[in-house]
Amino acid sequence: MRTDPDRLSFEIVARDGDARAGVLTTPHGTVETPCFVPLATRGSVKGLLPGEVADVGYEMVLGNTYHLMLAPGGERIAELGGLHEFMGWDGAIITDSGGFQVFSLAYGSVADEVKGRRGRPPLEGGVLAIGEEGVRFRSYIDGSEHFLSPERSMEVQAQLGSDIALVFDECTPFRADYDYTARSTERTDRWLRRCLDWHGAEGPPGQAVFGIVQGGTHEDLRRQSAESVAAAGVDGIAIGGTLGEDKEQMREIVGMTVGMLPADPARHLLGIGEPDDLVEGIAAGIDSFDCAVPTRLGRHGMALAPLPERRFRYDVRKRRNEEEPGPLVAGCPCPACTGFSRAYVHYLSKAEELTGVRLLTLHNLVYSRELVAGAREAIVAGRYGNYRDAIMAGAAPWEAAGT
Amino acid sequence: MRTDPDRLSFEIVARDGDARAGVLTTPHGTVETPCFVPLATRGSVKGLLPGEVADVGYEMVLGNTYHLMLAPGGERIAELGGLHEFMGWDGAIITDSGGFQVFSLAYGSVADEVKGRRGRPPLEGGVLAIGEEGVRFRSYIDGSEHFLSPERSMEVQAQLGSDIALVFDECTPFRADYDYTARSTERTDRWLRRCLDWHGAEGPPGQAVFGIVQGGTHEDLRRQSAESVAAAGVDGIAIGGTLGEDKEQMREIVGMTVGMLPADPARHLLGIGEPDDLVEGIAAGIDSFDCAVPTRLGRHGMALAPLPERRFRYDVRKRRNEEEPGPLVAGCPCPACTGFSRAYVHYLSKAEELTGVRLLTLHNLVYSRELVAGAREAIVAGRYGNYRDAIMAGAAPWEAAGT
Repeated sequence: MRTDPDRLSFEIVARDGDARAGVLTTPHGTVETPCFVPLATRGSVKGLLPGEVADVGYEMVLGNTYHLMLAPGGERIAELGGLHEFMGWDGAIITDSGGFQVFSLAYGSVADEVKGRRGRPPLEGGVLAIGEEGVRFRSYIDGSEHFLSPERSMEVQAQLGSDIALVFDECTPFRADYDYTARSTERTDRWLRRCLDWHGAEGPPGQAVFGIVQGGTHEDLRRQSAESVAAAGVDGIAIGGTLGEDKEQMREIVGMTVGMLPADPARHLLGIGEPDDLVEGIAAGIDSFDCAVPTRLGRHGMALAPLPERRFRYDVRKRRNEEEPGPLVAGCPCPACTGFSRAYVHYLSKAEELTGVRLLTLHNLVYSRELVAGAREAIVAGRYGNYRDAIMAGAAPWEAAGT
Repeated sequence: MRTDPDRLSFEIVARDGDARAGVLTTPHGTVETPCFVPLATRGSVKGLLPGEVADVGYEMVLGNTYHLMLAPGGERIAELGGLHEFMGWDGAIITDSGGFQVFSLAYGSVADEVKGRRGRPPLEGGVLAIGEEGVRFRSYIDGSEHFLSPERSMEVQAQLGSDIALVFDECTPFRADYDYTARSTERTDRWLRRCLDWHGAEGPPGQAVFGIVQGGTHEDLRRQSAESVAAAGVDGIAIGGTLGEDKEQMREIVGMTVGMLPADPARHLLGIGEPDDLVEGIAAGIDSFDCAVPTRLGRHGMALAPLPERRFRYDVRKRRNEEEPGPLVAGCPCPACTGFSRAYVHYLSKAEELTGVRLLTLHNLVYSRELVAGAREAIVAGRYGNYRDAIMAGAAPWEAAGT
């Protein structure tokens, strides 16, 4: 395992079963784990200013190499001082490698499936060629040709200057068969080495690199990938690729994969972040999560809420909310719940007013933040089992924190 | 002139030529004039939270009877505590009567013309009948039938509980001929009396009522309307209707109409608010302005700037801005200019990211606020002529304030 204290360190401060509470120290501040990482895919958390994201309590956001290399381009961002300076964010940044996105282009509608429809949205544009060297594709913006490879992804991430870069991987869909997944996992392993070679020679000294464990739903392939990533000298480990066809299989595969990982490095679960996924993932030993869910739901009139029977959300635009003088969720400390009625957010969302998107985005991010902050507190207090049970039974995070 | 100190008072604290600086005292705080009033047409300043609007320095916003009666409805807002409580705004609120909107429906594409294309946007839906009683029309939301009349407009504005209600008027387009405009002006005059009768009997005690001077581009009709409004016992006077076909004619008609008004009451110019219109309107003796321009431009990638030769704006999405590390406008104290590069706002606007809309909306509202705050300071100091000349010659408001 590569360790570079100037770049990144991860300290586990408490354990409760497989769950852990830790502190990730980056060149842009510390990140308490377990944590949720909001998406700033194209260089902004949609609708929010960086100060607001920090005020909500977030210490790290996720930018995307694929989107940022197409516009405004890694070179442009580097000229303007790097991604932190460009987007006005002083906290930590992790950048996704673009692997998921270019393979989503190739697999078309199967893209949704890779993360059981909870991942990033399908993209326009198209893949021209996939080979051992990398992937040639067309920009969804202007149709121009681009090439993404292990070296090019690391180069763009170096230009962005993120605190944590992710290696460039092939992300296989659920429908891929064993042989395809096996060949793909081997290629991802070769690409991992190319990423680390490039980064070792040319990467910015302050930037950490996380490897990605692939292998689909197959235990032997996940083990092979996990061992290879662990042996490669990375600063942390992400779990990617398909996690199966439903939440039950997802939990099984996450649990199985975590069990194959070394104990010390930070563990990130890519593209997963519904409330139940967070509490179950934390129980399995995951330290960080990124997901479009809180912000995307907010743009579609949906509020996160302690409703396990309704996927922990409800549609604020439904008529039943039109006269409700109380908040979106009772007890929630977010700006929407402390300042406005559910009837107002209902009205704004139905009217498609931007302020409605903003209030729901803030609510969903605060709710997710409360959920992981409560989990951390419970782990430190040695009562994470109670916390998890309470959340899964329908307690709000601030209620579950007392259980 | 009706005066009710519990409802509204307007004190002129300084004069410089025809320009005046004053203080409007409402049940929801004071408003320093000259002032610009941002639109909260449907109960929110699009994309902003009320605290932000106040932080920028605004003391009053404008809501719209037409939009709010269709959704969520005046009754619903009254049940939820009134418009201030509903939208979380503690400052003053003026509500437009809906007259402009329903007549825009009737006049179709001529709607744009009423304010020389600087007014409120054309609406879907349709007018079923216009009569002496009022206007029957279909909702642009669901096609349901609604009726708006002097009494009904005042009733909805009473439900909203705004600090200042506007009387229900017929708003004639530029293309209307003299005879039509004369008949319409007389009807508006009868409607004014019906509004005041209803409000005198049933209006909320804390709510002030402003009359609206119509009369198109015709001096005798404007005079007839101005005298009628002044004699009717209103708390303040707004200037509405067509102001001609270009800015030159608009200034002429505004100047002419202001000259017909009594000296003491507050004067509001409806739907006008580009930077040059503000400085010229203030010079003519206007105290307050509302306009969609700053917020609407922000949603279309446009930044207000000291560029008299380019209508005081530029398109941030143009390629020339893509590498600019400086702010939108040098010296501007807004959150966009103090925190982010023009290149970043350019990128976000081209990518249609919500955060770009937010930054440009904030910039344009701060710019407009700086413009009127600088004007007030100049009036008090007795050098408004210099200020106006400097703005019209291309100085930024904070530069012109020193001239």
